[in-house]
Amino acid sequence: MTDKRVERSKAAVLAETYRQLSQSGISGLSIDEVSRISGVSKMTIYRHWPSRSALVIDACSRLGIVSEPPNTGSLREDVRVLATDLADQLRTGSWTSIYPSIIDAAERDPDIAAMQSELHKCFMKPFHTVVERAKDRREAPLNMSADELIATIIGPLFFRRWFSKEVVDDRFVNLLIATAFHI
Amino acid sequence: MTDKRVERSKAAVLAETYRQLSQSGISGLSIDEVSRISGVSKMTIYRHWPSRSALVIDACSRLGIVSEPPNTGSLREDVRVLATDLADQLRTGSWTSIYPSIIDAAERDPDIAAMQSELHKCFMKPFHTVVERAKDRREAPLNMSADELIATIIGPLFFRRWFSKEVVDDRFVNLLIATAFHI
Repeated sequence: MTDKRVERSKAAVLAETYRQLSQSGISGLSIDEVSRISGVSKMTIYRHWPSRSALVIDACSRLGIVSEPPNTGSLREDVRVLATDLADQLRTGSWTSIYPSIIDAAERDPDIAAMQSELHKCFMKPFHTVVERAKDRREAPLNMSADELIATIIGPLFFRRWFSKEVVDDRFVNLLIATAFHI
Repeated sequence: MTDKRVERSKAAVLAETYRQLSQSGISGLSIDEVSRISGVSKMTIYRHWPSRSALVIDACSRLGIVSEPPNTGSLREDVRVLATDLADQLRTGSWTSIYPSIIDAAERDPDIAAMQSELHKCFMKPFHTVVERAKDRREAPLNMSADELIATIIGPLFFRRWFSKEVVDDRFVNLLIATAFHI
């Protein structure tokens, strides 16, 4: 196959994998179905992705569109921008219905656990960037570490999306910012 | 069957269902296997639980050992006791490896979603009780609702257990309490 045809086949396989993951989670993914619907033979699929895990990992790592970190000059405002953006994604992003199946599979499958850990780092990177920049410009330090700040802000947002199923709106984001920054 | 034999059969089925759920999540549950290992016929299983969902719901609702709400006379201390207890469960409880599979299945299965919502209410009840008691004794009100307090405290604990996989220790619980209560 030419490079272009290879790329087209890979894209078709990844798109169908992503669609199945959105619809039924990792456990509902069938390589037979991916092959049938994408029109790419199982042999070709297995040539590019040696295992079901490898395919899932590749499809999943294209999940998150991580935004550029803001740079407002204030850590509190930077965090507010990032949290508002995340809240918006939690309300509308199709990846939010897939992510629990990754979290679930990570409890048992070490490959998926490693992938989830990479994805998580990738999601959290903009938060670390804005904390580092605040340190660089010698902003008054918070009374918690970057990891603690992240858990304090993102934990409640995730909690509302997946556990309590409550609304994740700007009002709630502002409450979290006020609480973390002791306003 | 006598009542006692019925109870023994039901207990054997629930124990095996729970074991399979712990080992492989909801998607790994096989009624054939439950029947084979528990020694209870599929016909009997389906007489007690008309569907796979009904069995999962029954097994899952025995997951959480919800503790009696404390009554220290201070909302902050009551919440600290509850959060410390939850942190301990998140470190050691076997239900913590099953719960993500319920969260995942709830994204797609309305029966499981209804069950998860009931479970969630049950888990959160002691927190609501201590907030109500604080109101009754006219303790100075917090600047957030009971639901907001719960998300602020439990969200970061769940985040560390299932998403960032960081340690959930008493130091972290104390930080969350200090932040929520503006100490």
